[in-house]
Parts: sequence; C-alpha cells; structure tokens
Amino acid sequence: MAYALDEINAAPAGEFVAALGKVFEDAPWVAETVAPARPFATVAALHEAMLATMRAAPADLLLAFLRGHPELAGAAAKAGTLGADSTSEQAGLGLERPADDAETLAAMNAGYLEKFGFPFIVCVRRHTRASVLSEFRRRLTLDAPSEKRTALREIAYITRLRLVGLVDGPGAPVVNGSLTTHVLDTSRGRPAANVAMELFEVGGGQPALLATGTTNAEGHTDQPLLEGEPLRIGCYELRFDVGRYYSSRLAEQPPFLGVVPIRFSISEPETHYHIPLLVSPGGYSTYRGS
Amino acid sequence: MAYALDEINAAPAGEFVAALGKVFEDAPWVAETVAPARPFATVAALHEAMLATMRAAPADLLLAFLRGHPELAGAAAKAGTLGADSTSEQAGLGLERPADDAETLAAMNAGYLEKFGFPFIVCVRRHTRASVLSEFRRRLTLDAPSEKRTALREIAYITRLRLVGLVDGPGAPVVNGSLTTHVLDTSRGRPAANVAMELFEVGGGQPALLATGTTNAEGHTDQPLLEGEPLRIGCYELRFDVGRYYSSRLAEQPPFLGVVPIRFSISEPETHYHIPLLVSPGGYSTYRGS
Amino acid sequence: MAYALDEINAAPAGEFVAALGKVFEDAPWVAETVAPARPFATVAALHEAMLATMRAAPADLLLAFLRGHPELAGAAAKAGTLGADSTSEQAGLGLERPADDAETLAAMNAGYLEKFGFPFIVCVRRHTRASVLSEFRRRLTLDAPSEKRTALREIAYITRLRLVGLVDGPGAPVVNGSLTTHVLDTSRGRPAANVAMELFEVGGGQPALLATGTTNAEGHTDQPLLEGEPLRIGCYELRFDVGRYYSSRLAEQPPFLGVVPIRFSISEPETHYHIPLLVSPGGYSTYRGS
Amino acid sequence: MAYALDEINAAPAGEFVAALGKVFEDAPWVAETVAPARPFATVAALHEAMLATMRAAPADLLLAFLRGHPELAGAAAKAGTLGADSTSEQAGLGLERPADDAETLAAMNAGYLEKFGFPFIVCVRRHTRASVLSEFRRRLTLDAPSEKRTALREIAYITRLRLVGLVDGPGAPVVNGSLTTHVLDTSRGRPAANVAMELFEVGGGQPALLATGTTNAEGHTDQPLLEGEPLRIGCYELRFDVGRYYSSRLAEQPPFLGVVPIRFSISEPETHYHIPLLVSPGGYSTYRGS
Repeated sequence: MAYALDEINAAPAGEFVAALGKVFEDAPWVAETVAPARPFATVAALHEAMLATMRAAPADLLLAFLRGHPELAGAAAKAGTLGADSTSEQAGLGLERPADDAETLAAMNAGYLEKFGFPFIVCVRRHTRASVLSEFRRRLTLDAPSEKRTALREIAYITRLRLVGLVDGPGAPVVNGSLTTHVLDTSRGRPAANVAMELFEVGGGQPALLATGTTNAEGHTDQPLLEGEPLRIGCYELRFDVGRYYSSRLAEQPPFLGVVPIRFSISEPETHYHIPLLVSPGGYSTYRGS
Repeated sequence: MAYALDEINAAPAGEFVAALGKVFEDAPWVAETVAPARPFATVAALHEAMLATMRAAPADLLLAFLRGHPELAGAAAKAGTLGADSTSEQAGLGLERPADDAETLAAMNAGYLEKFGFPFIVCVRRHTRASVLSEFRRRLTLDAPSEKRTALREIAYITRLRLVGLVDGPGAPVVNGSLTTHVLDTSRGRPAANVAMELFEVGGGQPALLATGTTNAEGHTDQPLLEGEPLRIGCYELRFDVGRYYSSRLAEQPPFLGVVPIRFSISEPETHYHIPLLVSPGGYSTYRGS
Repeated sequence: MAYALDEINAAPAGEFVAALGKVFEDAPWVAETVAPARPFATVAALHEAMLATMRAAPADLLLAFLRGHPELAGAAAKAGTLGADSTSEQAGLGLERPADDAETLAAMNAGYLEKFGFPFIVCVRRHTRASVLSEFRRRLTLDAPSEKRTALREIAYITRLRLVGLVDGPGAPVVNGSLTTHVLDTSRGRPAANVAMELFEVGGGQPALLATGTTNAEGHTDQPLLEGEPLRIGCYELRFDVGRYYSSRLAEQPPFLGVVPIRFSISEPETHYHIPLLVSPGGYSTYRGS
Repeated sequence: MAYALDEINAAPAGEFVAALGKVFEDAPWVAETVAPARPFATVAALHEAMLATMRAAPADLLLAFLRGHPELAGAAAKAGTLGADSTSEQAGLGLERPADDAETLAAMNAGYLEKFGFPFIVCVRRHTRASVLSEFRRRLTLDAPSEKRTALREIAYITRLRLVGLVDGPGAPVVNGSLTTHVLDTSRGRPAANVAMELFEVGGGQPALLATGTTNAEGHTDQPLLEGEPLRIGCYELRFDVGRYYSSRLAEQPPFLGVVPIRFSISEPETHYHIPLLVSPGGYSTYRGS
C-alpha cells in the first residue's frame, strides 16, 4: 500500500493526487497544490510543503477544511460513515463504543463546535483515552486563536502519521516512540535475569494490561515493551515481580518487596522512554533513563 | 481497666486470678498456677511464667485448652457468643461478616479441625485478612508437631497482647510497631514539604485506605502513619502525590511522575518501618530505612 | 567565664561594659550605648541592639571601628599582639604560620586596605582556610558599598559567636552546626553496623583528617562527626570502608566497592548536615538528608 | 605482524613454529607439538591445544619451562636482556624503574624462587602495579600445588594475549575489556551533557591520571574511557565535575556537590564495566551497570 518517494516524485500529477489526496481530510487540494513543486528530497520536505499549503489557504477554505473533520466519537463514528483513516485511528481508543462518559463527550463536542465553529480535532494515535479527554477539557478553555493553532498542530501530527504510512523514502520524520526497561540487581552488581513484568495503562478507570515481559541475562527484555508507533500520552504502571526474583534468597515472609510498581507518565510520543529498575532486597531506584 | 504490676503482685490470689484468668482462653488454671510465684519483677517475667505453665501442662489439659479456642469466623463468632477479647480481636479483620470466601473459610476450618483435633489459632491482631488466609493455607500443610508448636507460638502472641493491655509496669514486652515516612527532594537537597500521601492495604481484593498524611517542613508527617498497636503482616502501598508537589516547577504535561506508589510488605509487626522517598522530577529511590 | 543573662541585665553599667566591652573589637562604646536599654529578654535581642548601635554610628566612628580590626595573618598576628579573641579565632585556620601562600596573602591584605581603607574582616570560625582565601579573592572584586555591607555582616557573625560564648540565657541565637551520617545496607534492608569512616577537609592542599567514626547497630555514629561550633564553609570528603564491611560476603577480589568517598561542600555553618550512605555490594546512593 | 588463522593452518610446520614459537616463553616445543594437529577451526582451539600440550609435558620439561620465565623487574629486566614480549609487557607497570619498593620486590622474588623453585609469573597486562604487588604477597603464602596451578593459569593469560596479538581469525577469545560511563540528571529526567570527568588509578601512591572525557548530548562519552586491551585489576576513581555542570542553576556557594568521586575496583579484566552517575543537585547514585 506504500509508495516509494521516488515513484511519487516521478508520477503524473493525477496519480500523485490519487495517492496522497486523503492525507489531509477531504482536502485533495493540498496534494494538488504541491504536485508541481516535486521532486521532494525527503518525506519530511513533502510534508512541510503540504502543511505550508494548508496554512496559506484562504480563511474560508481553511475553515471548510477544519469543518470537514469528523467529531470525536460523533455521529459519523457511530454510524460507521467515517473515512477509513479516521475509523482506524479513533478505534484505538475505543471511543466509539458506548461508555459511561458518552454523554459528557457529546456535551463537550457540542460545546466545542458552538465555541469554535469546527469540530474538536486531535491526533488520537498519540493519546490514551484519558489524555484525549483531559486535553479536550483543557482546549475548551482556550481562546479562539490559540485553539485554532492547536487544531492545526494536531492536523500536522495526524497527516505526518498518514504520510509516513503511505510513502517510504529518505528523510522520513520520526513518528514512533518506544518503551524499554532494564533491571539491575545492585545487591550483586549484576543484571537481574528472569524478572517478570507487566505494563498497564492506568490513566482511566481499571488498569489495562498492554504488555508483559521477562528480563534476559542482560537484564533487558528481548523486545521493547512498546514500539513501532507513537507512544500514547498518558499514565502507565510497570510492575516487576521482584518478590519471586529474590524468593530463593530471602527467609523473611512476606519479603519486603513483592510486586514493585513504577508509575510514570508519557508526554512525548515520538521519543524513547527507558525506565530502569535498580533493585536490592531492601529498596530500589528508578528514573527516566536514556 | 488496667492494673499496676505492683498491685497485681500484692493482691490476694483470688483477685489475681480474677484479674488475669481470661488472658489464656477459658484457662484460669494458668493464672492460678503462677499466683504463688509472685512477685514478678517485670510484665515480661509474668508472661514468661504463664507461658511456661501452659507448656508444662499435661497433654490432655493442653489439648482441652487448645480445643477451647473459638474457630476463626466460626459459629461462635456468627452467633455472637465469643468471649469479649476474641470478639474484638476478630472484628479487626471483618472476618465475621459474610464474604465471598466464607465457604472457603468454613472448609478450611473443618479440614483443620479434622487434621489437628483443635481449631485454627492465630493472633489476628498481627495480621491483615489476606495474611491470615495465606497463613491458614500454609499451616494446613504442616505436620502435627510443627503445627502444634505454631499454635502455641500464636497463643504466646495473643496472650502477650492481652496481658500488656491489662497490666502496666516495668519490663513490658514491645507489642507495638509503627510506620513512618520521610520525603526528600534531592533536586534541591531539602526536605519536600506539603507532599500529600495515602496508605492502603493492598493484599486482598480492593485497596483499603488506612491513613493519609502530608509532609511538614522537615519532610515528615506530624504523626506516624501507623502506631499504637502491632503492625499487621501484609502488603501495603504508600502513594505520594509527587505530581502536585512539582507542578509549579514543570512545564511537561503530564509530568513524568504523578502519583508515586511504593508497595512493600510488613513481616515484623512489633517493629518500626521507615519508608523514605528520595525524589527528583526525573526519578526516585525508596528503601527500608530505620 | 560566662555570665547569665539575668546577671548581665542586673549589673551596674560599669560591670556590664567590663563584661561585654570586647565583643566588638576595640569598641567598648557599643556596650556603653546599649547598657541603658537593659534588661534584654533574650541573648538575641541584646545582640541585635549592639548591632543596631554599630550600624547607627557616625561614619567616622564606624570607619575607625573597621580600621581597628587586625589584618588576617598580618603583622599583629605574627608579632603575637592580637587581642585574645582574634588570636584564638585566627589560630583555627593556621593562617599565622608561614605558608606557601604567605606572600599572596600579604599582597591581598595590602590591595584590600588600599581599595577599601580598612582591613579585610571575616568570621574565620565559619571558614576553612581554603574558603577564607577564595572569599578574600571574591570580595576584593566588590564595589565599596557592597564590601562594606559584607564586612559588617561578618562582624555580626564574629560578635554573635563571641556574645554566645560570654552570655548564657534564653533566646540564644543558633551558632553551631553539626554533621551526621547514617549507613544503610539496602541489600538487606537493615542498618549497616561496624562500618568505619574518616572525615577529611579536602578544599586545600593535602586532605586533613578531622574525625573518625564507626557505625553502631542503628547505622549511626554514637556522636556527630562534627558538632559544638559552627561548621566551616568548605569542601569535605567522608570515606566509608565498605570493602571491609562486605568482606565476609563477597568472593570477588578486589571487591567492586572498597573505600567509598563522598565529597560535598558545606555552605551553611549554623545548620545540620546529614549525609547518609545507602549501600549495596553493587552500588550506592548519597544525598543531603535532614 | 599478525597472521591469518588460515595462513597459519596452511603453512609448512617450520613456518608455523617460526611464527608461534615465542608465544610460550623459550618453549618452541609447544608450537612444534601442536603443528601436526592443524588445521584449527578457531584461534581459541589453537590456544587450547597449546595449553593442553604445556599441561601434558613431562614434569622436568614443565619445570624447565617455568624456570625459563624472567623475574618480575629482575636482573634481565634491568639489564635489558628480556625477550621483546616480556619487555613490553612489564614496561606497562613501570616496575623496571627504580622505586621505593625495589628492595621489597627483590626480597619477594628471592623468597618466591626459594620456596617454589621457579620465578613468580603473572600476566602483568591484566594488573596495575598495586595489584601485582598484592597478588605477589598473596601467592607467596600458597602451598606448592596451588601456586603451580596459579602460575599455569597466569601463563594461559599471557599466551592468550600473545596469540590473539599474532593470529587473526574466527573464534578469537575475548581478551579486552572496556570502561564506560553515563551521566543522567535526575532533577530533569534528561542526560547530563558537557560534564567533564577524569579517570585515575588510585591503588598505589599518588593517583595517576589515565583518561579524561566529557559527556555528549546523550550523557555518554564519545569513546569508552578505557578499551582495546585487558582492563587492569586495581582500584580506580572517576571524578565528575558536577559543580560546574550545575553552576548556572545554583545560588548556594560552594554548591553541595562539586567534584563527585566514584571509587571502584576492577577484578575482571576481560569485561565491560559501566559506571553510571545519576545526579541531582542534592545527591547522587552510582552502581555497576551493564
């Protein structure tokens, strides 16, 4: 489904627009406008050109464009008439499913549209459900120019992700993050092997299990706990089964440390988060590593 | 309700037995036996003498004594016919209330009685509900001599607590523990003031809030989080609101650290647990202090 | 040699001046001026009144007062004609002894006198030799009004120490600091006992041993490493013999940790510094505690 | 100067012996014996075969071989008649230069020869001067069979290093170690950039500067502090200039942390040592990482 940048650069304008016309929601004119500026040396340069086109659009066209975005978990989502991209993007949060806060969300959507004249736009792939809702509440309080800038910045995030998914080539912007850990047994000055762990999202109601892992001989997990897409802004808890790791060494029952929970927030989705645990039977440290 | 040790030492034997006859469940003969050995120099010596009497009792008397103990959350507890001491002791765990695990408990009580010939005895004031149940399961697997020793050790804990509650005097054994904390802001090399915290018991189903606190200018809470009785063996979580403490300093949203949970177990009820938090915006340490 | 505040308050003016006339160098008029304002409720109030008198003095009297101070390691110190207080105060730094930097010091004294019109005044009891010299260099660069304020502030420190040494009574200002440590073995969750340590001053040439200690069962030293006078501003190194503490547990030779040096600076002489060591065979933490 | 393993495997026996005859000191018979067993699949297999030949040698030949080794800083070293390999190996420690402990060393050499019948043999490239001397003292106390085993183990280290220096090929044993660091600023949750550091050997008299470095944007040094040969068993101090790193942020003078020294020992020369510093203005942690 992805195109090579070279191919896109060399294609007739019509094919170029057919390929990239949906990157900006219902706005093929963005692709049309940048087509003559080809070739682009990098994917990032192509994206920058498209963003510049969007920002330079006449006020009424830009407003129509903003209005063309679907509501968050709105009528289109419920009716299944969202565009394919928006559908899969929104699905990640489960916002389209009936929920306790459905009425709240409907009220916020209505209030937002009333205040700003277009729907609330957010790059949901960079958020947990909890952070979307808190961000929604925060943005409702902004003044119109600030909020318009915020909406355009979110569109930059949305379209960057879509474009990177469509076009392979040099100079692709970084859109993915990752989460790794490392467990060191400071009572022995050695990596701690065979420590089981679970990663939960804990920002909303019940903690939701996202990943599990076990440390190898180097104290790492073989694979990052999260990778391959943007991290989602939100609150997480990483739980290490330290009690079992030390169980053969300690007589004390129950041991001082059993499950060690590390709770932290992610605010930079396109970044590497490294959350080490330095542990001893009598205590531990953690920090944002690198 | 408490007697001075001097008073107890000087009282006629009848009064001595009236005062202390209920320390050992339904076994006034323990007090009767030690009465002539008075005076005792310390409360601990009095307790030791009573325990020696119990251990030296003829096998059938000792068995009758063990059989005289009420079941845990058993018929007597439900019917309200427990002795006053046992009633208040068991009440601390809520075991007498109907619960999901009531059938399990009934089955364990029956199995235990069948295997060992007397009811399961445990000093409930040193336990959380979760640790009573796990201890019950563990003790069901012991052989008869080991379990009899364990039951007598528990009676030593029960009677020590009752005796210390009844008799004031020198040389009272330590029966209380305490839990304290201390929050240091290592990014400033200063105590962290006004950090709110909550203490939960987390060994069983839902976390149960036990205490709340806020650090003062020295980074301590004005009062220990727990004190004045034995700590209960079990698993706890202390949650510090670090996010709010740093909120004025940090732009990053959400901040890396919000609520910092420290989960730890208590295994020594008559001890001081000190659980400090050394915190910085980018990480923290905790350990069993002193 | 010390007087009770009550006694000083009640004494005839002549005796009051005889007792306190030397607190301000060669300036009995300070004591004479405050004598009629007696009684003072606290030692601090007495000191404040004396300082207010000094600050309110006519410019020429104040200048004469400043000029009445001896040079640091100057001619009077070498000739042994310093007042008793100044002699013992300066002796603590060894500045009167011939040293490599004697010429430097002489040049700084001359330069200072030339620039400001009075000798360099510093409360040497709050300083190490290294910090006196660096402070001297720094103050040579100040403008005249700033430096005059600094000199008066130093006189406040000098006279506060002298007064607290002369007068016992309520409301004495805090003039002493202390330095303590605490060693916790996080590999066992227990205080580390029998850890030997040495405290050095390391700001100047060769490290100078100031104190030694060994941890007791609680992981503390029985006495603070420093106490009973102001801490001296400067750089210190506390060296813990961790290698010997763990020697029976570790096969690895040499062990990863042998002597653990903690280097830190003291900038607040009237304060408690607590420098804990949380140690494990594979690493350690330290921090400014409280 | 190095040969490819393939080349060595294919060469006539005479050339093979010419190439590798000096790997074992004055013992070309080792190479001669293994020549017919070629080809060797790996460098490690070749070394193992040579060691097996040495160990299987008749007792008198083995003793002659051991006696053929030069004394440590002995007559041959002083006269400049050591073999080229031994000369460069011993030079690393400066043991051939006159020193305060020259007499001690001569006495130990004599005592060792008297006790064991051959000179003290040690792989000096794996040692600092201080650790050679302490190892010498330790080994003088061993019984003859233990010490003979120790001497043969040292010859295995010496010849492994020589062989790896002579023969390139697959399956070369690991003979090098490395030392790296990482500085994290936990007060910001970010790597600490531009932190200058110095590495000293501190096992003997005066600390000897071995390397300097500065952290880059990731908190690492661009190159390991030590690499490309075996680490030398001994005691080291890594000093980080934390004071300058924080100087723009802190008003307190002098700052609590200036130069932070981390002292640690290396006992495994063929290993990677990672010594991170997690630092905040009010404290720090270090540990043996990985």
